[in-house]
Amino acid sequence: MRIALGIEYDGRAFAGWQSQPHGNTVQDILNRALGQIAGNRSVATHAAGRTDAGVHAAMQVAHFDTEASRPLNAWVRGVNALLPPEIAVVWAREVETDFHARFSAFSRSYSYFLLTHPVRSCLLAGKVGWYHQDLNVEAMREAAACLLGRHDFSSFRASECQAKSPVKDLQRLDIVEDGGLIRFDLTADAFLHHMVRNLVGALLYVGKGALGAAGMRTLLDAKDRTSAPPTFMPDGLYLTGVGYPESFGLPSLCDAGRLRLR
Amino acid sequence: MRIALGIEYDGRAFAGWQSQPHGNTVQDILNRALGQIAGNRSVATHAAGRTDAGVHAAMQVAHFDTEASRPLNAWVRGVNALLPPEIAVVWAREVETDFHARFSAFSRSYSYFLLTHPVRSCLLAGKVGWYHQDLNVEAMREAAACLLGRHDFSSFRASECQAKSPVKDLQRLDIVEDGGLIRFDLTADAFLHHMVRNLVGALLYVGKGALGAAGMRTLLDAKDRTSAPPTFMPDGLYLTGVGYPESFGLPSLCDAGRLRLR
Repeated sequence: MRIALGIEYDGRAFAGWQSQPHGNTVQDILNRALGQIAGNRSVATHAAGRTDAGVHAAMQVAHFDTEASRPLNAWVRGVNALLPPEIAVVWAREVETDFHARFSAFSRSYSYFLLTHPVRSCLLAGKVGWYHQDLNVEAMREAAACLLGRHDFSSFRASECQAKSPVKDLQRLDIVEDGGLIRFDLTADAFLHHMVRNLVGALLYVGKGALGAAGMRTLLDAKDRTSAPPTFMPDGLYLTGVGYPESFGLPSLCDAGRLRLR
Repeated sequence: MRIALGIEYDGRAFAGWQSQPHGNTVQDILNRALGQIAGNRSVATHAAGRTDAGVHAAMQVAHFDTEASRPLNAWVRGVNALLPPEIAVVWAREVETDFHARFSAFSRSYSYFLLTHPVRSCLLAGKVGWYHQDLNVEAMREAAACLLGRHDFSSFRASECQAKSPVKDLQRLDIVEDGGLIRFDLTADAFLHHMVRNLVGALLYVGKGALGAAGMRTLLDAKDRTSAPPTFMPDGLYLTGVGYPESFGLPSLCDAGRLRLR
């Protein structure tokens, strides 16, 4: 049978989602815990999106196939008892075998939280990005408008990106001031490698006055990563949800209270 | 001259605020950093409130005397450069010598954040308390009403408490459902040792139906710690502000964005 999981993790402790020979990735650790619950049979998960080292997930979605018949709760509480404090399975659902966590997904949502304050945060260290000065949020919103829709995002693509095409459909890029933080909410069909951090890096340049709305459009049109501002730190980045056809009956966003995301 | 500081810290890394021979307390580490900025002269801080191991501060207030004349920013950015990521000075002000961080304070405010969810949180591990089931918030509010005002809080006082009197004036105990978390906001002239965690522990019993409003009053009247529910975990507890007469011109609460406290 095929099981889909909603997974939360603090990305600071791991070398990203994707399995690696050294084994210290979220996927490796999760596969081992699932394998134990499956009666020491090997389990291979497939996730909606790879996240980099230091990037968090409030809701990653993955699936795996198993012949082990277990109550769904065993895939949540049983697995959680075997996972380190930085990873937790939040929900499990049995799904049809035509479901695939990566290929059935029609969208991914990320949020980036940015603290603008002269002093770094201790309480949110590693959990929010930080810039030491106020930013012009209205200017950032204006410059973000040209990014919406279907574009070649090569200017915001890491050189090591493995996506087949640099053309993605950015459906949402909201910039919200929320309780002293700036929050960037992004949804696209899919994201290129480092795309959110590169977009936030460029918008930060806009916010501090080093780039204008016209400059952002020029940058997008250039389709050239080397002309763009640097990749911003991973600390404030969270995968917050994955969109699937309703017929699969899966939650599309994380519970608000689990990161107080609004 | 006398300098007042607003200080933020993640309590997980330290054995509380108060200086200890082993030196791994917030006060010890802060004193050393301040001493370096003061030109390797010894500096002794006095704080508004001692916090226990694992308890956080979004705004602790402390003062110290020094003959070292430095721009105020040296006591913020200079000191922060010497502090570990889990401690930061957020502001510094020169104050008259009749100011004393502890004795001038007429109130302390704390917030306790509680996640109620079947699954523990990774993203907020160590930063919120956790209970695995929903709680009846309305019942907790009703039971909390009898705690407001001036009472002998012996039933909520740790045996090792050093306060002269168990009588404290609880001016505020609000229980708010906020984005999937339950937040307890408390203000009193001063708190007994473990008082907030003991009050939250008793209110949790109310929320899960093990204690009623009448039972809470009986508990308060008993003036006996041994008849009360256990002390709740420190993880979700934050010192959020200290009240001083306006004439001192100090901030009375932390900036909202520094913990997204509202």
